[in-house]
Amino acid sequence: MIDQQLMAPLAIEQHGGEGVLLGLLIIFASAKLMAELFERLRQPAVIGEIFAGILIGPSVLKWVEPTEITNVLAEVGVIFLLFTVGLDTQTRDLFRVGKRALAVAVLGVIVPFLIGYLLMEWLGYDWLGDHSKIESIFVGAAMVATSVGITARVLGDMGLLHLEVSRIILGAAVIDDVLGLIVLAVVSSLAEGGIDYLQIGITAGLAIGFTAFVAIVGGRVVTRVSHRVQNLRLKESHFHFALITCLGLSVVASRIGIAAIIGAFLAGMMFAAESRDTGLLHRSEAVMEFFVPFFLVNIGMQLQVESFLSTQVIWLAVIVTAAALFGKVVGCGAAMFGKKWKEVLQVGVGMAPRGEVGIVVAQIGLGLHTISNEMYGIVLFMAIMTTMIAPPLLKVLFREEQRTLGSEGGQSDEAVILG
Amino acid sequence: MIDQQLMAPLAIEQHGGEGVLLGLLIIFASAKLMAELFERLRQPAVIGEIFAGILIGPSVLKWVEPTEITNVLAEVGVIFLLFTVGLDTQTRDLFRVGKRALAVAVLGVIVPFLIGYLLMEWLGYDWLGDHSKIESIFVGAAMVATSVGITARVLGDMGLLHLEVSRIILGAAVIDDVLGLIVLAVVSSLAEGGIDYLQIGITAGLAIGFTAFVAIVGGRVVTRVSHRVQNLRLKESHFHFALITCLGLSVVASRIGIAAIIGAFLAGMMFAAESRDTGLLHRSEAVMEFFVPFFLVNIGMQLQVESFLSTQVIWLAVIVTAAALFGKVVGCGAAMFGKKWKEVLQVGVGMAPRGEVGIVVAQIGLGLHTISNEMYGIVLFMAIMTTMIAPPLLKVLFREEQRTLGSEGGQSDEAVILG
Repeated sequence: MIDQQLMAPLAIEQHGGEGVLLGLLIIFASAKLMAELFERLRQPAVIGEIFAGILIGPSVLKWVEPTEITNVLAEVGVIFLLFTVGLDTQTRDLFRVGKRALAVAVLGVIVPFLIGYLLMEWLGYDWLGDHSKIESIFVGAAMVATSVGITARVLGDMGLLHLEVSRIILGAAVIDDVLGLIVLAVVSSLAEGGIDYLQIGITAGLAIGFTAFVAIVGGRVVTRVSHRVQNLRLKESHFHFALITCLGLSVVASRIGIAAIIGAFLAGMMFAAESRDTGLLHRSEAVMEFFVPFFLVNIGMQLQVESFLSTQVIWLAVIVTAAALFGKVVGCGAAMFGKKWKEVLQVGVGMAPRGEVGIVVAQIGLGLHTISNEMYGIVLFMAIMTTMIAPPLLKVLFREEQRTLGSEGGQSDEAVILG
Repeated sequence: MIDQQLMAPLAIEQHGGEGVLLGLLIIFASAKLMAELFERLRQPAVIGEIFAGILIGPSVLKWVEPTEITNVLAEVGVIFLLFTVGLDTQTRDLFRVGKRALAVAVLGVIVPFLIGYLLMEWLGYDWLGDHSKIESIFVGAAMVATSVGITARVLGDMGLLHLEVSRIILGAAVIDDVLGLIVLAVVSSLAEGGIDYLQIGITAGLAIGFTAFVAIVGGRVVTRVSHRVQNLRLKESHFHFALITCLGLSVVASRIGIAAIIGAFLAGMMFAAESRDTGLLHRSEAVMEFFVPFFLVNIGMQLQVESFLSTQVIWLAVIVTAAALFGKVVGCGAAMFGKKWKEVLQVGVGMAPRGEVGIVVAQIGLGLHTISNEMYGIVLFMAIMTTMIAPPLLKVLFREEQRTLGSEGGQSDEAVILG
């Protein structure tokens, strides 16, 4: 008799898991459905896709849950997202806004950290009962994180990646990640009992050295090697070379301790000079289009409603989220000293999403037994909510620029290519 | 103190596993390195990438081993491969060779099955000792499988997918998969003690019905829906629609019991009429370029050298491999009755790779405790070796056509686009 048990292994074995394929289908289709719905409601597609993750994830429908596979696809998704953004970012344009980006990053680290720490010191003891100073410090560290993927996607969808403020945000996000690494290293070592300054110095040196080296020398290396690669026997060898560089620098960045996406972004910038003529940008965008929904849905799937059982915890989560938004707007905004008010807000809000980076800091805190399960839930909520609040605000803040772009017509090739 | 233990979780959690990323890098880079090397040795890139899998896999260097993640990436890879081939295959062209393809598929099932079964009955008892008739039947069933992905990739790389013989191979492979499903259903139910004719009839009906329905009606549905989809708010909505269709039909095919790749191929054919004008073919090719190495390397990684401890087992594996090649060439070749000798061989060899489909049949046999571990190793060897032997033979057999194509110039757009 051929029963379902018999046919099931065929499906699972032969097809790398029919269940897995079904999961991929549900994630991709629900993301695109929600993206379309949110676009019609004049909301950014990005938050539609994160919302799809909340909907189909463990919190509501329980159709799909985060697994190692969805995590890997999400990771590859955000790597391709940043790689593609890098492909469209000329190094010199980023260096031109370098000082401003540095200021935005530094103040965008200090202010949110202090706000997060002080907030927990003032509220935490009363509201959460059992609570340690190191937990407050960890919440501060989680406030430091910036997930540039979300903002990059929103600005890319609007065709506005070439604006000066967009470049400030991108540059600041790279520096922010290096600074965030150092903060996390210090905080983690505090949690473990003491600070090894030498080790932290080495970590910081490696991170800064890698970033600077790739940003400064990388482009020239690629220009020299590219024509040789194009002469290889294998077809599409230039695309393969770029993909290998992207994965390679992601691994190196990850090993040094900064986010893999920083490596991917730098890899993209290395190819920026030739990304249009070689068709590399279009190819990379196609791969990104397939992968990015897995990144966005995966953020939504992380939301754990069960953590929010008491009213106090809900209130604390809302307050922490507001403080996280406020911290970046004030900190990064202050660094935009002398600029127009609108630009101050654009950069502040653009740096606000904590996304997957904030989630990771929370996970590390949980892993070190430094923060409680409740606090983990609160930080997770903050990371997801800042990620969902920023895109609609950005859409409003950049409305005028998009209109100008639309009326100029000729200069809007970005909108076509990145859309 | 910040030691490696502390930094490691950062990398692993934040980046979906630095180890996983490193694995992806090793797989992709080694595949492309070997592909280039084999191209220089005038061998097909495809076998270079499978060879890379043998090299870095558990058999030799042990750098990477098959995991659920590599399996999923491999599965998505072969799905995109067949989807892309489908995008370039007009339904009417396939129907034009329908009768011939049917004959090739039917004889390509019967002859290899009989050869495999009889070979095991004659040799198996003496050589393997403890051995059952159902084991011989299972080896026969494994002989039936055809992995069209390999041949499609080789012909695509050569720019020859539009030849009549290529279409016969593609059509026959689809039918072969449906027939293979029925054979496997019968054999598996035999292994479990009896045949449920009704259930097998339903399975066969579903498989045939699905394939015929999608092939006949699918294209028209897509043509009607496509312009509506293109009017959606979301950018790239047509590409998303195609991806959802591809994943959706893969899941349905998989659930019915035929290979997911058949669903992907049919989905591709549904969009074939509009795949060039909409840029769908180029986008799909870019995604395929990223994924296919994982499919090919994964085949190589399956090879288990430990299974081959005795000389007798090695000899049997070589004989079974030769018989598998011979079976398809004779069976499929016979169905090419009345054609030129070269075309007979082209189709016979083109149908010979067993690839991942043969591996799956062996896994099912192992799962049902129908075949021994030794026999599993032998069938695995046969599946991988037929997959590695066919491409160089195909390259020789199609050399003249490729030369003609090159000199015609104008008609060689395939070579550019699929290369």
